[in-house]
Amino acid sequence: MGGDHAPRAPVAGALEALAELDAAHSIQLVGKTAVIEAQLAALAALAASAGARGSSSARDRLEIVEAPDVIEMADKPTAVRGKPNSSMMVGLKLQQEGKSDAFVSAGNTGAQMAASMLLLRLHTGLRRPAIATVFPTSKRSVVVLDSGANVDCSAEELTQFGRLGATYAEDILGRKNPAVALMSIGEEPEKGNAITKEAHALLAASGLNFIGNCEGRDLPAGACQHGDLDVVICDGFVGNVILKFFEGVAPLMIRMLVKEGLSEDAIKKGLRPLDYSEHGGAPLLGVKGVSIICHGRSSPRAIKNAIKIAVQAIDTRLNEHIGRRLEPVVAA
Amino acid sequence: MGGDHAPRAPVAGALEALAELDAAHSIQLVGKTAVIEAQLAALAALAASAGARGSSSARDRLEIVEAPDVIEMADKPTAVRGKPNSSMMVGLKLQQEGKSDAFVSAGNTGAQMAASMLLLRLHTGLRRPAIATVFPTSKRSVVVLDSGANVDCSAEELTQFGRLGATYAEDILGRKNPAVALMSIGEEPEKGNAITKEAHALLAASGLNFIGNCEGRDLPAGACQHGDLDVVICDGFVGNVILKFFEGVAPLMIRMLVKEGLSEDAIKKGLRPLDYSEHGGAPLLGVKGVSIICHGRSSPRAIKNAIKIAVQAIDTRLNEHIGRRLEPVVAA
Repeated sequence: MGGDHAPRAPVAGALEALAELDAAHSIQLVGKTAVIEAQLAALAALAASAGARGSSSARDRLEIVEAPDVIEMADKPTAVRGKPNSSMMVGLKLQQEGKSDAFVSAGNTGAQMAASMLLLRLHTGLRRPAIATVFPTSKRSVVVLDSGANVDCSAEELTQFGRLGATYAEDILGRKNPAVALMSIGEEPEKGNAITKEAHALLAASGLNFIGNCEGRDLPAGACQHGDLDVVICDGFVGNVILKFFEGVAPLMIRMLVKEGLSEDAIKKGLRPLDYSEHGGAPLLGVKGVSIICHGRSSPRAIKNAIKIAVQAIDTRLNEHIGRRLEPVVAA
Repeated sequence: MGGDHAPRAPVAGALEALAELDAAHSIQLVGKTAVIEAQLAALAALAASAGARGSSSARDRLEIVEAPDVIEMADKPTAVRGKPNSSMMVGLKLQQEGKSDAFVSAGNTGAQMAASMLLLRLHTGLRRPAIATVFPTSKRSVVVLDSGANVDCSAEELTQFGRLGATYAEDILGRKNPAVALMSIGEEPEKGNAITKEAHALLAASGLNFIGNCEGRDLPAGACQHGDLDVVICDGFVGNVILKFFEGVAPLMIRMLVKEGLSEDAIKKGLRPLDYSEHGGAPLLGVKGVSIICHGRSSPRAIKNAIKIAVQAIDTRLNEHIGRRLEPVVAA
C-alpha cells in the first residue's frame, strides 16, 4: 500500500519479479485485499488486451495477506505502534513469525525503519540500523551508508557502517575484500571534522579493507586517490544531503542541455542508469532480517529490482554474515 | 603566483578585468617580477600576432609588486607565518597598509584564509571567516556558505553565516531582503541533526528573512517548499562535500550522454553555466577587508570575474555592511 504509485507499482513489480525468479519463490502482497485484487484484475486485463501470454503461473505464487490499515507517507515513525494492523506492521510480522524471509516496501521510510527495529530487532552491538544506497558511478557501483537513518553519528557508529557496508558489498555486489572509504573533505587522515578524524583511526584498526578518506567528487568517479571504491561511509545527514542533491542536479542539467538544443528524450535515456531509484531498494542494514526500503516514487521495475535484491540477501545469508562481522565489536 | 594555471591565468585575467573596468581602477600583480614581466610580454606578443589592438591603456593601470617567495599549493596554512615575503602575504599586507582595497588569489585556499585572518583580522564576534560560493541553479544563483572553511560549527556560527551570506546577497547579487534557508534533511524545523535544530531556532529569532530548512535537492532547483532561495547555510564539511560532489557529477553525466551518442561539445557548452569555477571567486566573508578565493583551476575569465566581484565589494561597502550586521550579535 506504500509509495507514490501504490498499489499499481508494488503489485506490478511483484508480478514482474515472479516472472524472472524461479518457481521456488513466492510473494505475499500485504494490504487491503479488495484493493490488491482489483489491481491484479486490472493488470491482468491490460496484459490480455496487449495479447501477452497469461501470467497465471506467476499469479499462483502470489498470496494476498489482509492488512486493513495503512501508514500514510506523512505519518511519524512512531505511528507504527498505534497501527499494528497496517500493511507495514503485518508485513514485517510475517517475517518475525517465520512466515516470510524478507520485506520490501516503498512506503514511509521512517515508519519502515521503526517497525523493522521493533519486530526484527537489531544485531547486538548496534544502536540503530543504517540505510545503504547503491550509487551509480563512472566505474563500479558504490554502496553509500548511512543515507538517512542516523543524523548524529559517533565514530564507533561510522565504523560499524563500514562493517555493514562491506558485508553488503561482498554478498550482494559480489566484491571480494571490498574497499571501504570515509567521506571527508581531504584525502589525508587529518582532514575532516572531529568525528571523521576519530573514525579514520578506528577504521584503520578495524580489520576492514579501509583505504582512507575520499572526497565529494570521488563518489561519482567511483574512485579516490587511494583506489577504486566499493563502500563509502558517512553519517546520515551528509548521506541524505548528497543523495537528494544528486536527485536535484539531473533536472537542472537536463534543462540546460535542452536549452542548448539537445534532445530531451536522448538525454533522459542516457542518464537513466544514474537514476538510483530505478536500481531497486536500499536495504536497512543491521536489523535481524531483510527489510528493503524503496524510493517513494519507485516504478514497477524498481520494485522488481528490490525484490531480487531481497532474494539475493536471503540466498547469500547476508543477515548471518552481518551478525558474524559485528561479533568482534561485541567481544571488544 | 597561485593556482594551477599561474602565472598565465592571473596575469591574463587581470588584463581582461582592466579592459572592462573603468579607468579609475588599477591592479597590482604581486609575485616574482621577472616571471610576471615575462608573462606580460608573452601575452602582449600573442595579442599583437592575433592583430588585437594594443592593451597599452590596461598595461598603464598595472603595477608589479615584488614578492620573492611563493606559498605552494601543498603547503599547510601555517606556512604563511614562515613566508612573510610570499606573494600571498605581501599582497594582503598591501591591503592592511591601505595601499590596496582588495586581494584576489587562485592559490592555496587554507593559506589565503590564514593570511587574511592574520593581516586583515576578523570582525568582532566572529571566530573564523566563512567561504561563500555562488551556486548556479534553475532559478537565481544562490550563495552557499560555509563551503569549506569551518568543519565543526556551532549553531551560533551557522547563524552568523546567515548574516554574512545575507549581506553578500544584498550587496553583490542585488537581492532585497534575501531569503535565507538552512540545509537539512527535511523541511520541518524538527528535522536535522542536533546543531541544525538548534540553529533553526536561532535563525528564526535572528531578524534575518529566514524561511526555514531546505534539502539537498532544493539547491540545484534554487527553491524549497518555503520559497525561492538566496542564501543556503551549512557547515563547511557539508558545503565542501556538496560542492566537490557537484564538480564530480558533471563528468559522470557527460560520459553517459556521450555514450548515448550526444555531442560532447554541445553538452559541455550547455553545461558551462553550471561551472561555478567560472563564476569568479568565493569571497572569504568575515575578515575586515576583501579577500577573494579563486578555484585552483581558474581560467583568465574566472580571475577576471573574481576581480569584478572584488570591485563590487568595494563599491557597495560590503565589509562595512557586514560589520554593521554583526553588531547586534556583539551587543547581545
